[in-house]
Amino acid sequence: MKKTTIVLHSGDSDKLMSALIIGNGALAMGGEASIYFTFWGLNRLKKGMLAKGPLSKMNLVGLGAWAMRMRMKQKNVASPERLLNDFKVLGGRILACEMTMEIMGIKKEDLREDLVDEWGAVGMYINDSQDAGLTLFI
Amino acid sequence: MKKTTIVLHSGDSDKLMSALIIGNGALAMGGEASIYFTFWGLNRLKKGMLAKGPLSKMNLVGLGAWAMRMRMKQKNVASPERLLNDFKVLGGRILACEMTMEIMGIKKEDLREDLVDEWGAVGMYINDSQDAGLTLFI
Amino acid sequence: MKKTTIVLHSGDSDKLMSALIIGNGALAMGGEASIYFTFWGLNRLKKGMLAKGPLSKMNLVGLGAWAMRMRMKQKNVASPERLLNDFKVLGGRILACEMTMEIMGIKKEDLREDLVDEWGAVGMYINDSQDAGLTLFI
Repeated sequence: MKKTTIVLHSGDSDKLMSALIIGNGALAMGGEASIYFTFWGLNRLKKGMLAKGPLSKMNLVGLGAWAMRMRMKQKNVASPERLLNDFKVLGGRILACEMTMEIMGIKKEDLREDLVDEWGAVGMYINDSQDAGLTLFI
Repeated sequence: MKKTTIVLHSGDSDKLMSALIIGNGALAMGGEASIYFTFWGLNRLKKGMLAKGPLSKMNLVGLGAWAMRMRMKQKNVASPERLLNDFKVLGGRILACEMTMEIMGIKKEDLREDLVDEWGAVGMYINDSQDAGLTLFI
Repeated sequence: MKKTTIVLHSGDSDKLMSALIIGNGALAMGGEASIYFTFWGLNRLKKGMLAKGPLSKMNLVGLGAWAMRMRMKQKNVASPERLLNDFKVLGGRILACEMTMEIMGIKKEDLREDLVDEWGAVGMYINDSQDAGLTLFI
């Protein structure tokens, strides 16, 4: 199984979910996976922010963020919080972008430190991707 | 030639076109290509939805969706419908995300079933990407 | 070090910066890197457009485009102009999409020709990606 490395740049809930669903899929099939949280993506690692955040293009199906959450609950689709916990349990690694923390004035204690495996800048991500076969920017 | 696998998460017309133009380019040069339609991307596979959908950031050039379509027609740029037909004729494979169908309440008969090669969840996409050299999330 | 090839489809400042930061990181670590400017991304190569352009989702942190630029200046984060110059100095290659020029009515002289290494269509990008290990669509 190829290693999967994902840059999560977006803070949209649907993209956060896509990143985690792909990561969890790769892990469940026996591969390695890591997600580099940067820009608006890192914002979702703030305490209390996993459950929040807008859905991009939600108007396409005529459902708002709240209605979509209800729908997913009803259909037994895991929440971002649950997906991220599964990701960690399955052995996925979370990388946090320190440059984003600098720009946005985010401190370590503002973030879900319990989930983060590595702190660093873009070099950390580039290194991590050297043995990856599946590379995505989300 | 490397195999190309694309996740089409977005429902924006410009991104749908980008996915198809890259896919068709890879196929025309002798490579394999597949597109995994998921989230808002899958929505564009609904009957009658290929030609519709918003353009992201259209304001940058000051053209609306309708004006852009006229412009592309005038410049002989193929429509999404035409690009997708070319993709299939050239041997491209369309994968449809069943989890999205569940969440959004989409039935097989709502979609362009004639275009879909495989139905499945994220594992189908991960499998498909194992021998790919060019992997993109759009 | 793996070669990095990036499709820059977006015209958003944060995504332009992400593309350049990843490209510069790869180059600084001894790898090759290229960025294929297409659709709204190409628009940012117009004379005078590097410094402009919206930030996607800027509302998440409550900062507008101007405030964000001040913040980044204060934190010594390089501007897009500076990042792009670094990219070129480090040996990065800029590819410009001719189909986008056709559709949007952009002429070579409208663009920063001094920065462009190659002009062409999607085949140029596909070729360029054949020996890449890190492929991203931004």
